[in-house]
Amino acid sequence: MILVVSLNPALDITYRIEDVDWAGVNRPAEVHARPGGKGLNAARVLHALGADVLLIAMTGGHTGNEVRSAFSATGIPAVYADIAADTRRTFSVVSTGRGHTAGFYEAGPLVTAAEYARFVEQYRAALAGCSAVLLTGTLPGGLPGGTYAELIRMAADAGVPAVLDAEAEALWLGAAAAPVIVKPNLAELESAVGRTLPTSDLAGVAEAAAQLRDLGAGAAVVTLGADGLVAVTADGTWLARPQPAEGNPTGAGDAAAAALVYGYVLGQPWPELLGRAAALGAAAVAAPVAGEFGAADYERALAGVQVSRWEAC
Amino acid sequence: MILVVSLNPALDITYRIEDVDWAGVNRPAEVHARPGGKGLNAARVLHALGADVLLIAMTGGHTGNEVRSAFSATGIPAVYADIAADTRRTFSVVSTGRGHTAGFYEAGPLVTAAEYARFVEQYRAALAGCSAVLLTGTLPGGLPGGTYAELIRMAADAGVPAVLDAEAEALWLGAAAAPVIVKPNLAELESAVGRTLPTSDLAGVAEAAAQLRDLGAGAAVVTLGADGLVAVTADGTWLARPQPAEGNPTGAGDAAAAALVYGYVLGQPWPELLGRAAALGAAAVAAPVAGEFGAADYERALAGVQVSRWEAC
Repeated sequence: MILVVSLNPALDITYRIEDVDWAGVNRPAEVHARPGGKGLNAARVLHALGADVLLIAMTGGHTGNEVRSAFSATGIPAVYADIAADTRRTFSVVSTGRGHTAGFYEAGPLVTAAEYARFVEQYRAALAGCSAVLLTGTLPGGLPGGTYAELIRMAADAGVPAVLDAEAEALWLGAAAAPVIVKPNLAELESAVGRTLPTSDLAGVAEAAAQLRDLGAGAAVVTLGADGLVAVTADGTWLARPQPAEGNPTGAGDAAAAALVYGYVLGQPWPELLGRAAALGAAAVAAPVAGEFGAADYERALAGVQVSRWEAC
Repeated sequence: MILVVSLNPALDITYRIEDVDWAGVNRPAEVHARPGGKGLNAARVLHALGADVLLIAMTGGHTGNEVRSAFSATGIPAVYADIAADTRRTFSVVSTGRGHTAGFYEAGPLVTAAEYARFVEQYRAALAGCSAVLLTGTLPGGLPGGTYAELIRMAADAGVPAVLDAEAEALWLGAAAAPVIVKPNLAELESAVGRTLPTSDLAGVAEAAAQLRDLGAGAAVVTLGADGLVAVTADGTWLARPQPAEGNPTGAGDAAAAALVYGYVLGQPWPELLGRAAALGAAAVAAPVAGEFGAADYERALAGVQVSRWEAC
């Protein structure tokens, strides 16, 4: 069983409109409301890969109820920790005629110390017997940057290895708690090390990733969007490059995180694990909705991905 | 007691953002979610005026629950008719730096014949002892254009006079059921009579309003935004012009409708009733949120409103 932790899930609402009037009234042709956030997306991908998954999520208010009831339709087992404040919404307006998307992301709810303490009890109980835990996404208000580090240490106490996908202080402090893999994207890595890292400067990216290993992470895998990923591991540094994919990049990083934790649990060697993560990310781009991928797209992407050892010149 | 009917309420979500990126990610500085739709706005205004109000609204799903629990905080008595489909949302993105607002309005839910039949039972029960009923807003899916006409006739059978604020076929057919007042805005009047009516052509507007009287309405009051209103009544045609007001025009028409039904119940003569309706509309523009107005703004607007008899040249 892989435990997926979502402290700040969202109700993702998407409107599709041919030609948006940004100063007038629009009547969307299509309305989609679905449970989202990185943890829920990754849990769906793990479930689709055939993994046994258990989601643990903090939810509150009417939007929290909507997230819970919609996620229950996936059939994925889930434990919910109640909070008083409302689970956040995200609102995306896809301007189909122009190919633009405007995203509006509400700040997360404020979580009280008592609510977090109750969550921790449920989390400890859920860890029992799990083969790994994936901790992913932003922290809601009220939880300090060291929260993931604390949850990683609790997992270690229970003998459960952790994979972390976070940003800024939560990533930096979390890496020091010795997760087996940290998986930031480039912007998240930048926010943790405090400097900009152009994709073209792979040596710089690898150096920043190595900082997270130096802190304590077993491996640092940095997703680079269409450019695939770079992984700094105990066995050296690797590149995995997929064939170009067109579509919706939202959720591609969550698919890669799911592949990483699943491959780790299955004991896949780095080249296979990284190739699968890059291919699954590309397949997720081709799928219209975050947290989904087509099996044929994944097979095609796997056949086209190139994994190589990387040596700085 | 004034009964207010809302067949298609909404959860109104407003984001305020200094400088919106229409092709990127935005993190709104302010998020407001409140129960809306014309009926709920008018009920709030009536309550603030000191009227005894009872709301009857059709609600469904998680958004319906959110509308119900948020509206209950107003303290206004309400009866809810359950439907299976989700109550609609509206999103408004206010670009504070540019002074633009983009509105995104979901279509209403689909109401089944059985759900409507249950609503009608609750509606008949709620009518008992009411001094008037205000029927206002768009119809949800599944309810034919003659729905308001039917509800007006049921009210008449119970001895309850009706005020109607609707559009298109619902207004046209509703007028024929002899409500005491119909209150379209200019666009709604246009959609009912099937022709464009420039604000500058007051004779044309009055002529179109007179068509609704000819059909059966006791009076037709047409709100004209900043230009006030024109009323075609059995006592002649009247104009009411407020002083200019700046602010948010959403809900101004609902405030005017509330003033009309309240003034009718109180037996106010036309000049007073129409002046109050125009002034309350202007005061609602000055308030930041639909369904609210400031008492001082209302007093000021009342002092500045000009009501005159109008004769075609």
